[in-house]
Amino acid sequence: MKISSHAVAGMLGTWQEGPGPAHQRLSDRLRLLILDGRLFLGAALPSERDLAVALGTSRTTVGTAFRTLVEHGYLATQARTRATVRLPDDTTPEHLVGTDAETIDLSFAAPAAPVEILHAAFATALEQLPRHFERHGYDRYGTAELREAVARWYQRRGLPTRPDHILITNGAQHALALLTRVLLSPRDKVLIDHPTYPHAITTFTQARARLLPVAVTSSGWDTEQLQAAGQAANLAYLIPDFHNPTGMCMPTSVRQQLRLACPTVVDETMTDLALDVPSPEPLALHMPTAISIGSVSKSVWGGLRTGWIRALPSLLERVEQARPTTDLGTPVVEQLATAVLLNEHQTQRPDTLQQLRSQRDALWQALTEHLPNVHAPQPAGGVTLWAAFPGPVSSRLAAMAPDHGVTIAAGPRFGIGGAFERNIRLPYTLPSSQLAQAIRRLAQAAQALAQGATGTHTLAPIA
Amino acid sequence: MKISSHAVAGMLGTWQEGPGPAHQRLSDRLRLLILDGRLFLGAALPSERDLAVALGTSRTTVGTAFRTLVEHGYLATQARTRATVRLPDDTTPEHLVGTDAETIDLSFAAPAAPVEILHAAFATALEQLPRHFERHGYDRYGTAELREAVARWYQRRGLPTRPDHILITNGAQHALALLTRVLLSPRDKVLIDHPTYPHAITTFTQARARLLPVAVTSSGWDTEQLQAAGQAANLAYLIPDFHNPTGMCMPTSVRQQLRLACPTVVDETMTDLALDVPSPEPLALHMPTAISIGSVSKSVWGGLRTGWIRALPSLLERVEQARPTTDLGTPVVEQLATAVLLNEHQTQRPDTLQQLRSQRDALWQALTEHLPNVHAPQPAGGVTLWAAFPGPVSSRLAAMAPDHGVTIAAGPRFGIGGAFERNIRLPYTLPSSQLAQAIRRLAQAAQALAQGATGTHTLAPIA
Repeated sequence: MKISSHAVAGMLGTWQEGPGPAHQRLSDRLRLLILDGRLFLGAALPSERDLAVALGTSRTTVGTAFRTLVEHGYLATQARTRATVRLPDDTTPEHLVGTDAETIDLSFAAPAAPVEILHAAFATALEQLPRHFERHGYDRYGTAELREAVARWYQRRGLPTRPDHILITNGAQHALALLTRVLLSPRDKVLIDHPTYPHAITTFTQARARLLPVAVTSSGWDTEQLQAAGQAANLAYLIPDFHNPTGMCMPTSVRQQLRLACPTVVDETMTDLALDVPSPEPLALHMPTAISIGSVSKSVWGGLRTGWIRALPSLLERVEQARPTTDLGTPVVEQLATAVLLNEHQTQRPDTLQQLRSQRDALWQALTEHLPNVHAPQPAGGVTLWAAFPGPVSSRLAAMAPDHGVTIAAGPRFGIGGAFERNIRLPYTLPSSQLAQAIRRLAQAAQALAQGATGTHTLAPIA
Repeated sequence: MKISSHAVAGMLGTWQEGPGPAHQRLSDRLRLLILDGRLFLGAALPSERDLAVALGTSRTTVGTAFRTLVEHGYLATQARTRATVRLPDDTTPEHLVGTDAETIDLSFAAPAAPVEILHAAFATALEQLPRHFERHGYDRYGTAELREAVARWYQRRGLPTRPDHILITNGAQHALALLTRVLLSPRDKVLIDHPTYPHAITTFTQARARLLPVAVTSSGWDTEQLQAAGQAANLAYLIPDFHNPTGMCMPTSVRQQLRLACPTVVDETMTDLALDVPSPEPLALHMPTAISIGSVSKSVWGGLRTGWIRALPSLLERVEQARPTTDLGTPVVEQLATAVLLNEHQTQRPDTLQQLRSQRDALWQALTEHLPNVHAPQPAGGVTLWAAFPGPVSSRLAAMAPDHGVTIAAGPRFGIGGAFERNIRLPYTLPSSQLAQAIRRLAQAAQALAQGATGTHTLAPIA
């Protein structure tokens, strides 16, 4: 796929700041974009001339940077075609071989599986399975059992919902992909939280939308800014409940005032992970046109790939029609097990929430101890801290951290225009002892970076 | 989503043939396209002027046809915007309420579930599940167990394959969607069998590709035509093994000669359903660059939504990177159960194949008896007959057949440019007695149609 010069310039952001010659800053920055997957393998870069124009720099600078990347194996060139992204032959992507057992993975924000609970849910699902055997098993809306269970989940949260308001998907990201396909046209504008969930950014960008970022700061959301951006947007995507990556929860007062003029997708994946506050009210309670998406991947286990869309039946009908361009349905047994989990309220387990609380506190404590210059607001729920370093080190740290036995998700993956180069997302889904160990390693990596070390690690996938 | 006048003209095909005024033929044809979902709900049609130009007809004809559709509730219009597709308020889409228990569903080509075999596979999967609980469960390549099982499936078929040649998907259609995203750019040309699998057509069309159809006739594939089209194409999609919908199997001689110049996706979903001939050799045995996709939905059960891609690791890496724009992985339990099924050779069950044979023969017998003018070549495998009526009745029959208690998939859904209006696909996956009953009802519907009856049923989804 070809990447426009505009898109590359957006990803490069503030590349011109910093020491050293411009071509070196540019090649270094492009290398980091390749390593962390924002410039993906096989992507065709714009021509040197086009990129130079978009960056407001000389063609010589771009040409030199490209040649450096070719020399080091990050770009392939052929006569008369665009340079395409590759990886050096000696760089085995982490995710192909699996993460080294010794390496601590802080790039995934995902809880450990509740073993007995999952086993019991699947055992019940198996008992119920025979009644589905008469049907062909393809079902783009999902089974009645799960649609009812999800509707009840909303009912318990105070939002009247019928099963025909629910369409079952293969996780919340699949829900977002389907809604993007139905609601978004090329060059449409999408309001997003900034930072936001990286896979949402990719989904909108690949749909050739233009992004309208609205800051989520440590003081939360600004209603006026959201409403103003909503006037210009064709679609909004918000994570009001224990926002990923910042952990912020949108206050009730903002929820009550917020009226976005455009269709608004509300990601409720974290809703059940309230740690210090009551579970938030559904945004759709105050904004009835809101389209909700959710899943059990964060509240139960990522290996359960079920999610849902809550919307008017007329919109779900369009989603159902568009669905075959991604898949033909969600597996039946998986749906039955998820229905059991939702009906038994297993997405809000007091012991798991207690454990998350103590892990969050252990992570916080380790940061204070080993990285005292790093600042992170304490989130009231969800699974992540949004840590801020004093300087723009995030991408370089991510490319090097595996040398010190830890993988992290760099801040710029959660934003656009090269923003958040000071930030990294730190999930607290691992045991406290591992979290403390990971932060010790990260502190060593940061120290090595300050002493001039560089890294060439590609990032593991994130979720 | 906006539909171009070119696309609409393509779908309308030979609308100008036939009796009655042009505007009536046009509105009738557009109505059928809406009913069978090719013009989907919410789609924005081109302007009257643009469509008139594309169709080589007058603006008055198009305007009159549009007004008829508005009157009958098939189009919504607003000042200064394009007309959008809707359904009349009294038409409840079949698929929302589920198929009437009395209605026989011939639109889905999917086998009944093998109850005990599935139950045993999931029980084994549950036993293996705990070893996956330590990981977060998100895995874009799939579990080691299933990748190994699929590799062995290819090995058994004579094709050396390692687990790192395999990426697990949510069914073969998901595999195709992912490959389309990685391999296809807008305006690229795609070689397809003609007819072919409808969801493949949709996938390519929505990726804004241009289709190069190569006929699959009752004498099979023409090697020279395929190679010529392959020269012009950027991608090819072939179903050589018991082709859906025709049931044809590409002869070994063609497989040995065929060398397509473009990347070629080979759909092997039906491979294990050989009825009268040995299982075909993998096309990749002769064309090593072929990318194979497969699933167990036809050979075991559609409710198991697992499939795979077999390709070089370098291509799989690009697929893995592109995957988050559709989903974040395939559920773990589902994969473990599928691995059990493949390892135990449950995708080729002699009793099921014997049952399919007798159902195929029963369907054939019923056709001869009740619809003697309908011609259908006897397929050597797969799950469908491709029946040809003496006249172009297919779409109208599909819109009316539910009034007689049977749903069918009209021929034009399997082709482009309005082709196959004489054909319908008839699956033989139901018990013989139901198939015979379905054909009796279809014969009644055909008779009613001949006497001037019309229908307004939307089609159920197909697979």
